[in-house]
Amino acid sequence: MKLKIAVLGGDGVGPEVTAEAVRVLRAIANVNGYEFQFTEAEVGGVAIRKHGSPLPEKTLHTCLESDAVLLGAVGHPEFDSMPRDKKPETGLLALRQALGGFANLRPVQAYAALSDSSPIKQELVFGADVMIVRELLGGLYFGEPRGIKDDTATNTMSYSRYEIERVAHIAFQQARNRRKKVTSVDKANVLECSQLWRLVVTEVAKQYSDVKLEHAYVDSFAMRLIQAPTAFDVVLTENLFGDILSDEAAVIGGSLGLLASATIGGEVDLYEPVHGSAPDIAGKGIANPVGAINSVAMLLRHTAKLEQDARLIESAVNAVLLDGYRTKDLVPSARKFNTTAEVGSAIERQC
Amino acid sequence: MKLKIAVLGGDGVGPEVTAEAVRVLRAIANVNGYEFQFTEAEVGGVAIRKHGSPLPEKTLHTCLESDAVLLGAVGHPEFDSMPRDKKPETGLLALRQALGGFANLRPVQAYAALSDSSPIKQELVFGADVMIVRELLGGLYFGEPRGIKDDTATNTMSYSRYEIERVAHIAFQQARNRRKKVTSVDKANVLECSQLWRLVVTEVAKQYSDVKLEHAYVDSFAMRLIQAPTAFDVVLTENLFGDILSDEAAVIGGSLGLLASATIGGEVDLYEPVHGSAPDIAGKGIANPVGAINSVAMLLRHTAKLEQDARLIESAVNAVLLDGYRTKDLVPSARKFNTTAEVGSAIERQC
Ligand SMILES: CC(C)[C@H](C(=O)O)[C@@H](O)C(=O)O
Ligand SMILES: CC(C)[C@H](C(=O)O)[C@@H](O)C(=O)O
Repeated sequence: MKLKIAVLGGDGVGPEVTAEAVRVLRAIANVNGYEFQFTEAEVGGVAIRKHGSPLPEKTLHTCLESDAVLLGAVGHPEFDSMPRDKKPETGLLALRQALGGFANLRPVQAYAALSDSSPIKQELVFGADVMIVRELLGGLYFGEPRGIKDDTATNTMSYSRYEIERVAHIAFQQARNRRKKVTSVDKANVLECSQLWRLVVTEVAKQYSDVKLEHAYVDSFAMRLIQAPTAFDVVLTENLFGDILSDEAAVIGGSLGLLASATIGGEVDLYEPVHGSAPDIAGKGIANPVGAINSVAMLLRHTAKLEQDARLIESAVNAVLLDGYRTKDLVPSARKFNTTAEVGSAIERQC
Repeated sequence: MKLKIAVLGGDGVGPEVTAEAVRVLRAIANVNGYEFQFTEAEVGGVAIRKHGSPLPEKTLHTCLESDAVLLGAVGHPEFDSMPRDKKPETGLLALRQALGGFANLRPVQAYAALSDSSPIKQELVFGADVMIVRELLGGLYFGEPRGIKDDTATNTMSYSRYEIERVAHIAFQQARNRRKKVTSVDKANVLECSQLWRLVVTEVAKQYSDVKLEHAYVDSFAMRLIQAPTAFDVVLTENLFGDILSDEAAVIGGSLGLLASATIGGEVDLYEPVHGSAPDIAGKGIANPVGAINSVAMLLRHTAKLEQDARLIESAVNAVLLDGYRTKDLVPSARKFNTTAEVGSAIERQC
């Protein structure tokens, strides 16, 4: 097994957490004799500072030459009032578009070891296991026209039948290997984009008669996700709704720092923890590396087809949490916590 | 005190809950010698069935002649695949636009009596008291162009400086009379609409130096609202974000059925419970009337300037909940519960 992996640490805590994920991948490669080749490249604020662009040509080239991209996080307040082409997030969005992955898988589960960390009552989150499938290349993120003119700002939400179809297929395929239920989330009582979404998802569902489809409005879904997280299996939704709902779903596990994502369906697969750059805690060695480490487990699963090794990492994460390892985000008060590296190497040792 | 109130029960549980709210208003009027004149009119699905339009001319006329409108809810699955002008929700949106209220106030609080009902851990919700100020006449709800053409659907999110300014002022004024903090929620790292939003809100804030302003991204806010609901006072946001976040915030109180809203700033003020038409439980007399009753408390506060009477209703709601009255939505298992009318008349008796 040979794999070329581009590592884009990005901003804030990004480099710290991707370093731990790479450490875990190296351990797996050593044990099994896999050849994983890592190439570092710059994206986001750090790339703007050095090269004047949030996605330099060289970075893009490195990514397109790779089998998978591991990205930490982008974003820093210093760019808040910059024009769009000088924003870290613009680099991430351009990269997503260039790599072509349109289905962003964001699994969320309640870790038994962490039942104390969730703000939701234990009996409600117990057993929760949700796979959010977020459309990643459409909607308000990319729609034209956009901009600010004459004191009026405009963004465009737009979806074609084709864009909806392809991500719906991914969701139903995921559901087939899980608990066979898809909840499609939209705002079809108001938005035409959602009406087309509902129509197309309903059509695609006919090809998956073993999977149950339900539709939900995004407003009431945002409530039900907290009231009854165990009621859901696969959640399929458009780009911005998926952005909001996946951060919200982090409360099920107890911390955004735990969540991983995989973006598939394009030329090159992209793996990112769901958390952001968290500039307030950057450089202190206290960020949670589990989101990044779970992301490389997804890399082994989806890009390398090494399901066993993916599970090995996931079990190691579980074991280490059960052992009581906790980064600061998982420790409510000012109690003792573990550093990023401590958690990373504990997981490495279990792999 | 004379007041003309248009009562639009609408669909599903709408008529059942507005009936209880009217009952409470009548009681208050009797005791104090106020003249409240109620005129019923049709909106939503019921209006489509009878008159072919979700907002008949006559209804609009009745509303525009009134001092305030009390609306139950609109929406029914039978219209799901109808074109936009034959959807119940289109009637509600047209009414909102015609009445002109652009600031939708949605207070959310944790009732001491109901700490069992919230899915969030008691120690986290205890004392939570949030006022969501949702912009109600802009964004994706009304933006043009919109529609479905050649297998592609389009909606437009658009905000002018003026639209942002006027709702921001309302939020800061609310904060002044509360805990003096505004959290403005946007997605300024991606959307130009949010960039203008952040800019204008920051400018308006300068006129309210006694109020603290913080900005938050909608994704991470959706998480923090559950993790630390007591961290927020006034939450200011655009139309669709406000729609999602206010339903989500219902988990703080324990049921969507409790939440009230007031839409102010236009020609005629509009009062609606936040919950929907809930067709599955309609006609059974089991819907929670508290959202509608709390809405008429807001009517007395904002339209009639009868702050004392508003508080009287709110205290009555509190007392009745403390007495143990519970509609089905507040009773987790199949335990005994009270009917809509039982809760409504219990509140009436306390007024
Ligand atoms: C950083 C930002 C552009 C990004 C998004 O909105 O997609 C992030 O919030 C995410 O969820 O991956
Ligand atoms: C019924 C619907 C159009 C409405 C909205 O989206 O505004 C409702 O969800 C609300 O929150 O009042």
